[in-house]
Amino acid sequence: MKKIEVGILGATGMVGQRFVSLLERHPWFELAWLAASDRSAGKPYVEACTWRLREPIPESVRGMRVNECQPGSAPQLVFASLDSKVAGEVEREFAGAGHVVVSNSSSFRMKADVPLLIPEVNPDHLALVRTQRRERQWKGMIVTNPNCTTIGLVMSLAPLERSFGIEKVLMTSMQAVSGAGYPGVPTLDIMGNVIPYISGEEEKVEQETQKLLGTLSDGHVRPAAFSVSAHCNRVPVEDGHTESISVSLRSKATLTDLAEAWRKFRSVPQERQLPSAPEHPIVLREEADRPQARLDVETERGMATVIGRVRVCPVLQFKYTALSHNTIRGAAGAALLNAELMKAEGYLD
Amino acid sequence: MKKIEVGILGATGMVGQRFVSLLERHPWFELAWLAASDRSAGKPYVEACTWRLREPIPESVRGMRVNECQPGSAPQLVFASLDSKVAGEVEREFAGAGHVVVSNSSSFRMKADVPLLIPEVNPDHLALVRTQRRERQWKGMIVTNPNCTTIGLVMSLAPLERSFGIEKVLMTSMQAVSGAGYPGVPTLDIMGNVIPYISGEEEKVEQETQKLLGTLSDGHVRPAAFSVSAHCNRVPVEDGHTESISVSLRSKATLTDLAEAWRKFRSVPQERQLPSAPEHPIVLREEADRPQARLDVETERGMATVIGRVRVCPVLQFKYTALSHNTIRGAAGAALLNAELMKAEGYLD
Amino acid sequence: MKKIEVGILGATGMVGQRFVSLLERHPWFELAWLAASDRSAGKPYVEACTWRLREPIPESVRGMRVNECQPGSAPQLVFASLDSKVAGEVEREFAGAGHVVVSNSSSFRMKADVPLLIPEVNPDHLALVRTQRRERQWKGMIVTNPNCTTIGLVMSLAPLERSFGIEKVLMTSMQAVSGAGYPGVPTLDIMGNVIPYISGEEEKVEQETQKLLGTLSDGHVRPAAFSVSAHCNRVPVEDGHTESISVSLRSKATLTDLAEAWRKFRSVPQERQLPSAPEHPIVLREEADRPQARLDVETERGMATVIGRVRVCPVLQFKYTALSHNTIRGAAGAALLNAELMKAEGYLD
Amino acid sequence: MKKIEVGILGATGMVGQRFVSLLERHPWFELAWLAASDRSAGKPYVEACTWRLREPIPESVRGMRVNECQPGSAPQLVFASLDSKVAGEVEREFAGAGHVVVSNSSSFRMKADVPLLIPEVNPDHLALVRTQRRERQWKGMIVTNPNCTTIGLVMSLAPLERSFGIEKVLMTSMQAVSGAGYPGVPTLDIMGNVIPYISGEEEKVEQETQKLLGTLSDGHVRPAAFSVSAHCNRVPVEDGHTESISVSLRSKATLTDLAEAWRKFRSVPQERQLPSAPEHPIVLREEADRPQARLDVETERGMATVIGRVRVCPVLQFKYTALSHNTIRGAAGAALLNAELMKAEGYLD
Repeated sequence: MKKIEVGILGATGMVGQRFVSLLERHPWFELAWLAASDRSAGKPYVEACTWRLREPIPESVRGMRVNECQPGSAPQLVFASLDSKVAGEVEREFAGAGHVVVSNSSSFRMKADVPLLIPEVNPDHLALVRTQRRERQWKGMIVTNPNCTTIGLVMSLAPLERSFGIEKVLMTSMQAVSGAGYPGVPTLDIMGNVIPYISGEEEKVEQETQKLLGTLSDGHVRPAAFSVSAHCNRVPVEDGHTESISVSLRSKATLTDLAEAWRKFRSVPQERQLPSAPEHPIVLREEADRPQARLDVETERGMATVIGRVRVCPVLQFKYTALSHNTIRGAAGAALLNAELMKAEGYLD
Repeated sequence: MKKIEVGILGATGMVGQRFVSLLERHPWFELAWLAASDRSAGKPYVEACTWRLREPIPESVRGMRVNECQPGSAPQLVFASLDSKVAGEVEREFAGAGHVVVSNSSSFRMKADVPLLIPEVNPDHLALVRTQRRERQWKGMIVTNPNCTTIGLVMSLAPLERSFGIEKVLMTSMQAVSGAGYPGVPTLDIMGNVIPYISGEEEKVEQETQKLLGTLSDGHVRPAAFSVSAHCNRVPVEDGHTESISVSLRSKATLTDLAEAWRKFRSVPQERQLPSAPEHPIVLREEADRPQARLDVETERGMATVIGRVRVCPVLQFKYTALSHNTIRGAAGAALLNAELMKAEGYLD
Repeated sequence: MKKIEVGILGATGMVGQRFVSLLERHPWFELAWLAASDRSAGKPYVEACTWRLREPIPESVRGMRVNECQPGSAPQLVFASLDSKVAGEVEREFAGAGHVVVSNSSSFRMKADVPLLIPEVNPDHLALVRTQRRERQWKGMIVTNPNCTTIGLVMSLAPLERSFGIEKVLMTSMQAVSGAGYPGVPTLDIMGNVIPYISGEEEKVEQETQKLLGTLSDGHVRPAAFSVSAHCNRVPVEDGHTESISVSLRSKATLTDLAEAWRKFRSVPQERQLPSAPEHPIVLREEADRPQARLDVETERGMATVIGRVRVCPVLQFKYTALSHNTIRGAAGAALLNAELMKAEGYLD
Repeated sequence: MKKIEVGILGATGMVGQRFVSLLERHPWFELAWLAASDRSAGKPYVEACTWRLREPIPESVRGMRVNECQPGSAPQLVFASLDSKVAGEVEREFAGAGHVVVSNSSSFRMKADVPLLIPEVNPDHLALVRTQRRERQWKGMIVTNPNCTTIGLVMSLAPLERSFGIEKVLMTSMQAVSGAGYPGVPTLDIMGNVIPYISGEEEKVEQETQKLLGTLSDGHVRPAAFSVSAHCNRVPVEDGHTESISVSLRSKATLTDLAEAWRKFRSVPQERQLPSAPEHPIVLREEADRPQARLDVETERGMATVIGRVRVCPVLQFKYTALSHNTIRGAAGAALLNAELMKAEGYLD
């Protein structure tokens, strides 16, 4: 099979770097085009980018020229991780010009005709692009993945929603600094500190969760009916959002039932063996003090949600801790898996 | 007024060091006696202790000889911050020998006849010592303060309980490493990490909260009836426990009502002008991103609970963030304020 | 005595905040005027500034209006801590307009007619302003303090140079992030890391050291003849530059001689009892593992250089560790002490 | 080829864990035996060990029973990373009982008849074991690798010594916390701090460097004649010792000469293609701000020394920064490479 050429919009940022890294040896996609802000355009990637990942820049990408964010020369499929100030406009332009934009930005996530997608959770929502094309008259399309904090929460909730129904969810996050991009959080703000506020984050988590676990019918998503509350905090961790979660369920369940629901959870990406799919989308740890960002964030190459400390909650019904890699499963890896699903489902033909 | 001589059991630990520091210029109490483990006994304090506070060891204490934990030579009033393995036995021995033990340990906190005390919250519970003396036949007595995580939570809840009644509380903590003592948490465990587990902590928070906000009648405390759920996490912060709190109230209230209840909160320590009492036991911050451990932990010399981010909770009713200094308000300062209350109420005569 | 009104150029930065804090209760100076970049001009200080110090903004300064960096309305005496891109031009304009500019910037430090001053080390260099006025025809003047890394080094060298003469110095610094200002160092760069490079820093240390310990004659400074080599590193520390120093001396000395030279070191600021002068400009620690930034940086309110680990060096002659507070002794406190010296010496009349 | 069975003395510590990890898929050696302190003996490895590495415990080792440190059942070849208090005695016992002890401990490093070995630097010193056997009458033998701080220094010096001769070396280290083992450095000591002291470290670096670069003749090592001075500091970094190094050479050289000497450096491990040998034992970085622990410590699977910032030193002759992984190249990987060299040279037959 000939590889499909892909591009990256916002290739020099933290998520852009993850795209570059994850695409290095991808069996289906080949990185052929990079774009970033005007400041970077025209430079070779190695100069335009302050590379912050622990693995080195792929040799083949070092000298690749960075383009302006214009649709002209870009491949059909582009991954987008642009700054939120410009993301909306650029993505609209690319979709209008016929590109398939697989976006990590928040601009279109909550639009009624744009799929907000986690392939393990709501692969059927992809069908929303039909509504999108009809209503927007775009030659291309936009598909989005959720916020990095939403995704770990929803991965942990999906098997519970399927098996027992969810009534209420309360989540407190302890979020890694890489989630704020680069240069991102100043050291003087976060060293030895907790910042109990991330602008817009709690609203995103609360709304996106309901859309992701909502039901598609007649070309529209009816949001899930349960209530969601999020407390979002920044902590001095490099990668990995830790979440303390309490949940009430609609039907009776035991701790063992929950464990079983999580353990047996498999979905379309696993069945179709998508290249970036984790073998176990949820990994359950039995130890009293896990998951931990430092030790567990790379589980299944950063694509699994790791759950632990499952116990009874005196206020809601159950409580547990979930961990998810915020720039892999929560951003670049999420978009990549979305694109793989689209390929497998024939949306890229 | 002649100062009252006091001693410290467990003087070399983190909380012991805070006692030493807070007693340096105390107007009522004079540090006259130090005790620690057998390993330290006989040595001058400066040698027995790995002093970890940013302020220097008080000159007058450097050369003071460390005693064994035996009641013989100790003053009547002793503050106790012993390791939990030995605390119960030693405190019992001291109380039996006629000492007033003002303890930071957990051993006796939940005993039916031992006051678990926050002077701003339940000063009347001090009367439990009458039951204690009757039942235990001790010549002395034991009075305790709550766990360092409980105290910030309960300080924030007390005005709400008074004004509106509490129905449910869910708290997620992000706790400082100084709460684990010294040497405490290994660097390799917590650097750039969150540990979602602190042994026994959640149970303490849940039970102590109900006792502290319970009602004294007939020499017994009836625990508060509301449900409490705690998620306890360790984060790489030096001092200051940050807590994300959601609460449901029994009677109708607005965000403004809550703010007013916190702002006007004053109690016995403020009325009696106890030396360690904060002028404002609760300090409310209006900024979107406060309280922060790094910036706010020293508020009112570490004796205030700082509250911020008050907003509506979609699952319970209200949510907010609270910050409390874990080794001052949450340990040594708490015990000191207890002793001051006892003095003011005539319990030390 | 009526207080002298002073202003701050660059009042919203990290060093500007230190000026505000140190001036709060100053016995001689009264903060009357603030200026910062055009972006901040017109706003009340509390809004223009992201206050990062642990102590709160002084009440009297919160609402003070921030001015543009124009000499018009400013008091005669201004402290300057502007961004290096604009510092040179603005300071020149103020000096030309008759202001006494006491600057923390590097722009004029190495100019032949500008005093580069540490009041304990080379107070006589202040006389350079006569050359300056003659040559530049300014109605005002510029006086500078050294770079934050230079100052700890030179404080430790001055008594050795006086007593024994210095032949060679090799210094490796481990510098705090506050030295890079705010937002300064991104968390992703420095968390759990050492950055072995700070642009221009090594050159500054090497050149400034020679000027500071040089000799004034005929209105010119002849730089000290010894060689200086600096390795500058950034480490994840909030405040306090730690320096590993090796030195060769011209005349014979023992470890005891060095200790005595440091212990007995007093100079003009101590003799004249300048308000910001540390009682002991050098504090010598005997413990094997001191000085430490976390424990010792506040020594003498951040104005002392703390020295420890004095021992023989197999390559040069002696080696030791020095610690200095980079934004107090190394910046705002240094400038303040310079201004106090100028007042005491009649330069502000 | 049948794999050689090997054991680990001190298998539960930080270095022991690295041995376990590095041996997982080793082409020549097979982990067959684990031993640790009496407290751990009898337990399965997963219970005896607080596993701190980011990669998971190899499945095959989880259930392996931990033995006491007795030679009886151990394989012929054992890697040793015991606590320094017991290392000497245990290693002597094993060597006496016929085992080949490849040790990371300091006990025997400076003994005249024990090879202190870096396979790239002084492979010929291995011949010292003949002296050892003759003098000690052991059936087995002990071979050692240097301290984790020495090794990066000496790797960087070896090509300079070969090409130009070394006259003087001054090194300041900024060492990672993993070098202190587990639990090791308390968080309260090192968070946001530099500790300018590591017990015994400077002496080790100074002496071991001279032995490693010394000359073997007549069964004895004559230490290198140049002087070495070390300043050793602990910093809040997880893995990777950064070293600021100044050096004087005996013969004339330019910066280009140094770069070339480092770039072309290859030695016995590369020629013989030992399995753990880095392809490039020294990696030279051109960027102004490298090497950095966070970004470069894994270079060549943690087995390379990364050098950067090569420039002229005003006091000695040249200065540069070197980085080395302290628990891989500086400990477990070093011992493993020693064993591979011994195998290749026929010492294990």
